[in-house]
Amino acid sequence: MYTATPGQDDPYVIRTDHDGIATLTLNRPQQFNALSQAMIAALQAHLDAIAQDPAVRVVVIAAAGKAFCAGHDLKEMRTNHHKAFMQDLFRRCGKMMMTLTQIPQPVIARVHGIATAAGCQLVSMCDLAVAVDGARFATSGINVGLFCATPGVGLSRNLGRKQALEMLLTGDFIDARTALQQGLLNRVVAVDALDAEIDQLARSIAAKSSVAIGMGKQMFYKQLEMGLDAAYQYASEVMACNMMTDDAGEGIDAFIGKRKAEWKGR
Amino acid sequence: MYTATPGQDDPYVIRTDHDGIATLTLNRPQQFNALSQAMIAALQAHLDAIAQDPAVRVVVIAAAGKAFCAGHDLKEMRTNHHKAFMQDLFRRCGKMMMTLTQIPQPVIARVHGIATAAGCQLVSMCDLAVAVDGARFATSGINVGLFCATPGVGLSRNLGRKQALEMLLTGDFIDARTALQQGLLNRVVAVDALDAEIDQLARSIAAKSSVAIGMGKQMFYKQLEMGLDAAYQYASEVMACNMMTDDAGEGIDAFIGKRKAEWKGR
Amino acid sequence: MYTATPGQDDPYVIRTDHDGIATLTLNRPQQFNALSQAMIAALQAHLDAIAQDPAVRVVVIAAAGKAFCAGHDLKEMRTNHHKAFMQDLFRRCGKMMMTLTQIPQPVIARVHGIATAAGCQLVSMCDLAVAVDGARFATSGINVGLFCATPGVGLSRNLGRKQALEMLLTGDFIDARTALQQGLLNRVVAVDALDAEIDQLARSIAAKSSVAIGMGKQMFYKQLEMGLDAAYQYASEVMACNMMTDDAGEGIDAFIGKRKAEWKGR
Repeated sequence: MYTATPGQDDPYVIRTDHDGIATLTLNRPQQFNALSQAMIAALQAHLDAIAQDPAVRVVVIAAAGKAFCAGHDLKEMRTNHHKAFMQDLFRRCGKMMMTLTQIPQPVIARVHGIATAAGCQLVSMCDLAVAVDGARFATSGINVGLFCATPGVGLSRNLGRKQALEMLLTGDFIDARTALQQGLLNRVVAVDALDAEIDQLARSIAAKSSVAIGMGKQMFYKQLEMGLDAAYQYASEVMACNMMTDDAGEGIDAFIGKRKAEWKGR
Repeated sequence: MYTATPGQDDPYVIRTDHDGIATLTLNRPQQFNALSQAMIAALQAHLDAIAQDPAVRVVVIAAAGKAFCAGHDLKEMRTNHHKAFMQDLFRRCGKMMMTLTQIPQPVIARVHGIATAAGCQLVSMCDLAVAVDGARFATSGINVGLFCATPGVGLSRNLGRKQALEMLLTGDFIDARTALQQGLLNRVVAVDALDAEIDQLARSIAAKSSVAIGMGKQMFYKQLEMGLDAAYQYASEVMACNMMTDDAGEGIDAFIGKRKAEWKGR
Repeated sequence: MYTATPGQDDPYVIRTDHDGIATLTLNRPQQFNALSQAMIAALQAHLDAIAQDPAVRVVVIAAAGKAFCAGHDLKEMRTNHHKAFMQDLFRRCGKMMMTLTQIPQPVIARVHGIATAAGCQLVSMCDLAVAVDGARFATSGINVGLFCATPGVGLSRNLGRKQALEMLLTGDFIDARTALQQGLLNRVVAVDALDAEIDQLARSIAAKSSVAIGMGKQMFYKQLEMGLDAAYQYASEVMACNMMTDDAGEGIDAFIGKRKAEWKGR
């Protein structure tokens, strides 16, 4: 993990790739990786590039330093205290959060420390999330007179409404076990086991057909916003299209022939 | 807690205020606080008054006697057995339940005993709920040939659909631990600890900016009914407006200056 | 449970009735009860007949052999590898799955073994589900290059989105305890206790007014797709209509008179 003091030229986000897994590491540890305008822009640029990069099959969002992400940069917000700045900031941040769900590759949050406000939102908007057992989560804006409205959008689509409201109204932390039980996380592990767990999960997904994963991820979020009848009509059409791809033919032949499939990819 | 035998002149709901916390106590213990027309009207009147009262920052719904609330008044319904009465009753009850989500102050259910049918709905529609470990919950209408349709609206927005359907189809009770695990409750405590827990939770929220809480609560329920893109657009605008309030400026300055914020309130 | 080797003339689905409980047993144990075109058609025909049969008050979906249901028939799909076949297959399967929610009788899945892909979807679309503690669940299509799109529709309406996505993206199994905790199941029991548990649950529902159950089940799924205000308006009207039925009058009179209700039925 990155530990040196960051200078002016340090990138806000560091990308490292291996075996089809792109890791984006938030790199402002001394600012607890605050989602400043520059940080949001850096994440957006990396996600846009990854969306076009067929070599990337899975994305991991990690962070340098002690915290995962402490949300927006309150000092930057106070320095630019006019409405147009705020509208632009939240619009850009919301767009970046939506992009996490829109790129074809699954995105896994690697949560090694606290995630608060928009940092908690970042966890909620990743497709999957794995945290260490000491990680903690809060939507703490209400403590400074600023209800975590946009974090609430992601949070209320992971937790039940009473559980989400308790976090939003009190600003209190929940621990990783509670976050797991309430739906914000997929897995909680000891700090020593975090990298192995992320690696296992990422490799498992990277080994699948990226064509099927990409079609499926897009379908998943679209059908969530439909009624049952429309969702089935749409999912049926996607599945018929998926079935006509080379990868599905190969996958089924390999399964019937009891051999390993060779994906063509996209 | 109220224990005397209620007479004709006893109010259906007793309001007591302290430190910005208004407690509404259902006051028909011998009728298990049934949601008769008079009880619904009394709750509606209190909620409407509280919505206009900036001195109130949190509302607690409590109940006198052994039960929290046993739902509609079956005798009153049987005595007035015509459709216009039923339509009017359920319309008024639904309006009161919606009001719980519409007033700017968070509403906490203080559940010290059983909550059945529309009483269970009342718990489900409060923003937050704390119960004693001996409390039990059921949508028992189906036992008398009356499916708990309106309670099902609230219940299915707290529990998963299979869990909600099991309660609605069987009429069976679930205990407080199960209700907590399934999303109907925020906290379960021993009977001795109930008042302290409610007080701690209510004071925690009362200490926040009521401007931010009011904007946030309204935003929360509205965005739940939107798709992700519309929800982010709306929440971004609300958050930008919240950021321009005096309380957010004060809150952030206090945070940066490491001092306690002084809210202006609404 | 059915154990003989099935021949050409064996029905795909066996229906047995007792005490108002119709059990539909998937009967291709050697094919792990794959949802072939013939199996889907047989289920559809039975469900359509049951919808019209007032003697049936509860439906149980069971399965013969070692597995509950292994999803679509991959060999049949590979043999008929053109898009029109796929569209027709998924359309028919989706219609059958929707029918589970549309018939007036509650449907309980009796899950004695693995349920994968569309077999897992079948569990998710039943109103209620009880499984043995050794049952396991997966949406394994992604292992053969075919994202479980239509199973995802049902799964994401039972589990949280991160939990559903993990299953869909990895194809990994979850055990019965996890499925219970995440919302896919109502109850998990030892294999010896499965029939008694199903019987107890089915009889509990069969003892209720079938008029109220039928109105309520239809209402439940419709209101889930509405905003809160529209849901209350609709549920209020359904409840007023339910209240005017003979069964509700009888049920309330019996309750007040402390006697057992005699339902007229539909």
